[in-house]
Amino acid sequence: MTPSASPLLTDLYQLTMLQAYVEQGMMETAVFEFFVRKLPDHRNFMIAAGLEQVLEFLESLRFTHDELDWLAHTQHLTRPCLNYLEHLRFTGDVAAMPEGTVFFPHEPILRVTAPLPQAQLVETRIMNLLNFQTMIASKAVRSVMAAVDKPLIDFGLRRAHGAEAGLLAARASYLAGFAGTATVLAGKVYGVPIYGTMAHSFVQAHQNESTAFEHFAEAHPENVFLLIDTYDTEAAARKVVALAPRLKARGMTIKGVRLDSGDLAEHARNVRRILDEGGLTETRILASGNLDEYRLQALIASRAPIDLFAVGTAMTTSSDAPALDCAYKLQEYAGRPCRKRSEGKATWPGRKQVFRTSGPNGRPAHDVITLVSDVQPGEPLLHPVMQRGRRSAPSPALDAIRKHVAAELEGLPEQLRPLSPGTPYDVRIAPALHDLARTVDERGVG
Amino acid sequence: MTPSASPLLTDLYQLTMLQAYVEQGMMETAVFEFFVRKLPDHRNFMIAAGLEQVLEFLESLRFTHDELDWLAHTQHLTRPCLNYLEHLRFTGDVAAMPEGTVFFPHEPILRVTAPLPQAQLVETRIMNLLNFQTMIASKAVRSVMAAVDKPLIDFGLRRAHGAEAGLLAARASYLAGFAGTATVLAGKVYGVPIYGTMAHSFVQAHQNESTAFEHFAEAHPENVFLLIDTYDTEAAARKVVALAPRLKARGMTIKGVRLDSGDLAEHARNVRRILDEGGLTETRILASGNLDEYRLQALIASRAPIDLFAVGTAMTTSSDAPALDCAYKLQEYAGRPCRKRSEGKATWPGRKQVFRTSGPNGRPAHDVITLVSDVQPGEPLLHPVMQRGRRSAPSPALDAIRKHVAAELEGLPEQLRPLSPGTPYDVRIAPALHDLARTVDERGVG
Repeated sequence: MTPSASPLLTDLYQLTMLQAYVEQGMMETAVFEFFVRKLPDHRNFMIAAGLEQVLEFLESLRFTHDELDWLAHTQHLTRPCLNYLEHLRFTGDVAAMPEGTVFFPHEPILRVTAPLPQAQLVETRIMNLLNFQTMIASKAVRSVMAAVDKPLIDFGLRRAHGAEAGLLAARASYLAGFAGTATVLAGKVYGVPIYGTMAHSFVQAHQNESTAFEHFAEAHPENVFLLIDTYDTEAAARKVVALAPRLKARGMTIKGVRLDSGDLAEHARNVRRILDEGGLTETRILASGNLDEYRLQALIASRAPIDLFAVGTAMTTSSDAPALDCAYKLQEYAGRPCRKRSEGKATWPGRKQVFRTSGPNGRPAHDVITLVSDVQPGEPLLHPVMQRGRRSAPSPALDAIRKHVAAELEGLPEQLRPLSPGTPYDVRIAPALHDLARTVDERGVG
Repeated sequence: MTPSASPLLTDLYQLTMLQAYVEQGMMETAVFEFFVRKLPDHRNFMIAAGLEQVLEFLESLRFTHDELDWLAHTQHLTRPCLNYLEHLRFTGDVAAMPEGTVFFPHEPILRVTAPLPQAQLVETRIMNLLNFQTMIASKAVRSVMAAVDKPLIDFGLRRAHGAEAGLLAARASYLAGFAGTATVLAGKVYGVPIYGTMAHSFVQAHQNESTAFEHFAEAHPENVFLLIDTYDTEAAARKVVALAPRLKARGMTIKGVRLDSGDLAEHARNVRRILDEGGLTETRILASGNLDEYRLQALIASRAPIDLFAVGTAMTTSSDAPALDCAYKLQEYAGRPCRKRSEGKATWPGRKQVFRTSGPNGRPAHDVITLVSDVQPGEPLLHPVMQRGRRSAPSPALDAIRKHVAAELEGLPEQLRPLSPGTPYDVRIAPALHDLARTVDERGVG
C-alpha cells in the first residue's frame, strides 16, 4: 500500500485533453476548485478530510519509464505529449480548508492553481481521495455524536471497497472521533490505535466454549476480551463468571466481553447482571453487529449497559450515501474567470474564499462565499498549504486533526446536531460573486 | 498499486487468535467457506468475482522484516508467534466457483482448506476482495441487461472508494459485460479497453466552444469525440455540424458527441436531428451523468437515439447496496464439522458443494447445497483452483470470464431477468446437510 497511486490511476480524458493543451501551448495558469454540490440526504454538515493524501499525491506525481512505455504502446498519445509527461511534476499552489473543518455545499474546500495541463491531470485522483475520506469522516462523526461519550472502534475493513478504502476509512473515522480501528495496517501507516478481540471461528475451533475462553486468556493475559454469542449469549456469560476465579488465581482479569447478534440491549442487560452477580463489575461490554448511528442512538437512549461499540459496514461504506455529489471545476484560466452552465450543474466562477462568522454564542452563525479579492468579515477558511509544488508547512499530526474535529463539534450550531436534517446552515453568496457570474455570462461564449 | 496488499491489511483479531492457535498447537486442518447470507434488495442473483485477486493474495502472502519489526514493537504478539509469522506461507487448498458464475444466498463460492492459523489469518482480505468485486459485478450486470445491446463504459473512478476500488470496479464491470473503462490503469493492469472524451474544463479553458472542438480534433484526429453540454447542448450540436466540413477537408470525421446533463432523451433526439440534417448521420451519441440501470432502462424504453452509455457512481459504489451480507465461516476443524448458532446468523456445517440442475428448456432449474461427500444430480459448481498453495491451473483470461458471464446471462431463468425482484430461484438444502446440522447440534458444545 503506497499512499500515492500510479498517475495512470486517472481517466483517459485527462491524458487526451492534456495532449491538446500541450499541442496548443495552453500552459497558462488554471484555477480549479473542489466542492460538494449538495448535502447527502440525512446530513446537516460535512467534515473535510483527505487533504494529506492529496498533498502526498501531488508531491510524488511522476510517470515512470514503465508507465510511459506502456502509454506509448497504446498509441493514444503523441511523442511530444509523452515527452511532456516524462518531465511532468506538480509545480502549482494549493489552498485548502484544514482537515477536520466543518463545511457546507458550494464551499470550495480545496483550490489548485497550476499550469493548465497539471491542474487538469490531477482531477481524478484528487476527487477520488477527497470524496472518499470526506464522505467517511462526515458519516463517522454521526456515530461519534450518537454514541455521546462511549468509545467507538472501526470494524469495517472486510466490507470496505478494497484495500485503500479500508485503510483510509480507519484514518477518516479516527480523525472524526473514533477511538481506534481493528485494521492493523492503519496502526502501522497512520498510528491509529488498534483493537481486537476474537471471532466465532475461534470458539468453534475448540471442543467447548470455556476452553476457547481459557486459551484466549492464556495467549493474551493483558487483554482478555471474549466473544460470547457463538451459541447462547447468557450461558456463555455464566461460563465467563465460572472461569474468572481460575484466571484470577493466575493473575489474569477478564477485561471485557463482546456481543455480536440478537437484541443487543436485552443481551447487554442480562449479561451485565450475570457479570455483576459474579463479581465481574469491572468487565466491560462491547457491542457490534450491523451498528450505525441510528442503532447507537437507540441503544444509548435505552440505557443499555454497553461500554463501547464497534461500527463496521455502515460507516466504512457510508451505506446511506456511498458517494458525494462533488466536483472539481475550472474557475479561471489565463486570468479569465469561467463557469459551466450545464443544466442543474452551473458553477460559481473565479478564485474563491469562504468566511465564517460567529454569533453572540460563539458558534458559527453564517458563512459567506466570495472571491479571494473580496475580503469579508469573519474567519477565512481556506489557507495556503502548498506553494510551487512544495508544502507550505509540515502536515498536522492526525491527533491534531482529531482535536480540531472535536472542537468543531463542540462549537457546532444546535440546529445541525440532530441525526435528521434540520434548518440548513446559512451560507451566503457575496455580491462580488453574483457580479462576476453576471459578467461572465454577459461576456458569453462563442 | 500492487494487486496484493500487506498481510497487515487485516483485523487485529486474526493475529491475536493466531497467537493462541500457535501456543495451543492448534495446527490441524480447518475448512472455511465464503458465502452471501441474503441477496441485497433489488437483486435476483449474484455474479461471483474477485477469485483471481484472492489467489494472488494467497500466493504472495508473507510478512516482511519491516512488518515483523513493527508488530514486535506493538507488543501485541509474543516472540514464538512472530517467529511463526516470519515463516508463514499459504500451503492450503482452495475450491471455488469460476469467476462470472451466477450464484445465490448460502451457496459457498469459495472454500479454503488449510492449517487453522493460515485459514483464519486470510479471512479479512478474502472477504474484502470477494465482497467488493462480487458486489460490483452483480450491480454492473444489471446495467448490461438494461442497456440491451448498447455498449457501456465505466466512468466511476472519481467516486470509487479509493484507488483499489476504482481499479477493481473497472475489472468487475468489464467481466460483467461493460465494453471498457475510462480508468487508464485498468488498461495497463488488466487489459481492459480504455475510452475517453473530454471534460467541461477543456471547453471552458478555450475562449469559445468551436475552438475547443477544433483543438481537440487536431490532437486526436482518429477519435474526435466532443462534449456538447457545457453551455447549450443544441447550440453546440450546430457548432459541431458547422465544424464538420472544415475537419473533413483535413481528413477528420467527428466520431461522436457526449451529453452529460439535462433530459438526456430529449437532448439526444434534438441532437440526432441536428446532426442528421447536417449530414453527420454516422456521428454517435454517448450519454453520461448519474446513470444507473433504471435510467438506462427508461432511456432504452423511450427509444432515445443514444448509441452508448457511460455509467459511473451508481455502479462503482453499488449505490443501492454498497455491501453484501457475506461471511467467511469455519465449517470444520480437525475433521469435526461445526456451525455457529448466533441469532439470525446460524450457518450450515461441513465441507460443501453446490449442484446445479437444468430444466427441459436448458436453463438452470434449481440448485442443491450439500456435503462434498454427497453427490447429487447436476453440475458441481465449485472446482479445485489451488492445491498446497499453488494454482491448479493458469487463471482464465479476463475475456474468457467475460464470455462466461455472457453465457450465464444468456441461460438465465426468465424470472431472474427483471430489475425488480421476482420469484426467487429454487435453492435446496440436501438432506445430508440437514442431518449433519442436527448431529452437530445434538453433539452440543460445552
